[in-house]
Amino acid sequence: MNNPENLTPTQRSQIKRVPQRGNYERQVIYQILDEGLICHLGFAIDNQPFVIPTAYGRVEDQLYIHGSPASRMLRSLITGIEVCLTVTLLDGLVMARSAFHHSMNYRSIVIFGTASVVKDAEEKLEALRAFTEHVVPGRWAEVRQPSRQELQGTLVLSLPLAEASAKIRTGAPLDDEIDYDLPVWAGVVPLQLVAGEAIADSRLQPGITPPTYIQNYTRVHVK
Amino acid sequence: MNNPENLTPTQRSQIKRVPQRGNYERQVIYQILDEGLICHLGFAIDNQPFVIPTAYGRVEDQLYIHGSPASRMLRSLITGIEVCLTVTLLDGLVMARSAFHHSMNYRSIVIFGTASVVKDAEEKLEALRAFTEHVVPGRWAEVRQPSRQELQGTLVLSLPLAEASAKIRTGAPLDDEIDYDLPVWAGVVPLQLVAGEAIADSRLQPGITPPTYIQNYTRVHVK
Repeated sequence: MNNPENLTPTQRSQIKRVPQRGNYERQVIYQILDEGLICHLGFAIDNQPFVIPTAYGRVEDQLYIHGSPASRMLRSLITGIEVCLTVTLLDGLVMARSAFHHSMNYRSIVIFGTASVVKDAEEKLEALRAFTEHVVPGRWAEVRQPSRQELQGTLVLSLPLAEASAKIRTGAPLDDEIDYDLPVWAGVVPLQLVAGEAIADSRLQPGITPPTYIQNYTRVHVK
Repeated sequence: MNNPENLTPTQRSQIKRVPQRGNYERQVIYQILDEGLICHLGFAIDNQPFVIPTAYGRVEDQLYIHGSPASRMLRSLITGIEVCLTVTLLDGLVMARSAFHHSMNYRSIVIFGTASVVKDAEEKLEALRAFTEHVVPGRWAEVRQPSRQELQGTLVLSLPLAEASAKIRTGAPLDDEIDYDLPVWAGVVPLQLVAGEAIADSRLQPGITPPTYIQNYTRVHVK
């Protein structure tokens, strides 16, 4: 019953509402995580929840987040408390004939676990590389690499991609049978995060044009 | 010192890291909430955090969320536990000359508080109207209104917009002075959630074209 292509749902990661939208396939989870740019990271202190948006990177089955060692969030996470990391891609607005059946198309990932500090210098640099490449593939090789001081001033945490699930809604509205006769427009408004024309920094050195990976920037079909 | 145009920061809502990015102006908070489509709602049970993406609506200083009475999230929230509701708009990728100074432009809102069940039938209907109109202005008047059974089968919760803050980053990268000499492209890649061409439902009644509010759908400059 143990399929390595799938994660095993647990009490907290199993999709209970509308279970047919749940998905535990590793490749599906990878794809959503790789298309997303930010996660919402949740943790609790004395049952007081905090939900903070932050960037992330992925290397195989490790998710990396980073920040200043002074960050309240990171200082909390390094104590080993439970984390819930959620990534959501909004794909469309689902317009039904009744108010009740309006919905959204989306792909989301929820990961549960505890985060660890990445201490090994090589893994830390690799995490930061993955971090930059996750946001803008091709960028890392062109920019000034982190100095020793910058590396020391960056806290990198890893969260294992072990206890996780995807939840996905796609397709058309599902109306009550009787409502299909109504003279109301119904369907889907697709949504996508789209890059506009790059804005050069005012202090750019003369003659430098945006690289191809900036000019053609898109989140769709990454990798 | 009490300016009604501003929310008063509290221990948990005050922006501590990079405080100049914090903003407590009511109109700024409204605008971000009104442009957003989904929030990430955090709560904790025995210090186990959960972060769930969900849609929302706003009427003045109340945020509304809704769902099935069977939802684990809503069943937890109605017990009066603490909630952290976060809305994030990603506005751009900030490309610096060094890996270290890469950043993102964003506008986010974090709201703390406890949610209450909306029991009053009139307020509940008004919340659902706000909910639909928040996502697609103009939609509510055209669709079949909720039946008594649908209203009974929907749990609506309100969260007061009292303890909240915005955090905003805009503009160009901030590089170390020495790095401005590097021959590296730097600037901002603007990002925006854009609506594609509407996809009509396959069972649409003949002769129905998408309404203007669907054809011209945009999240920018809502209201």
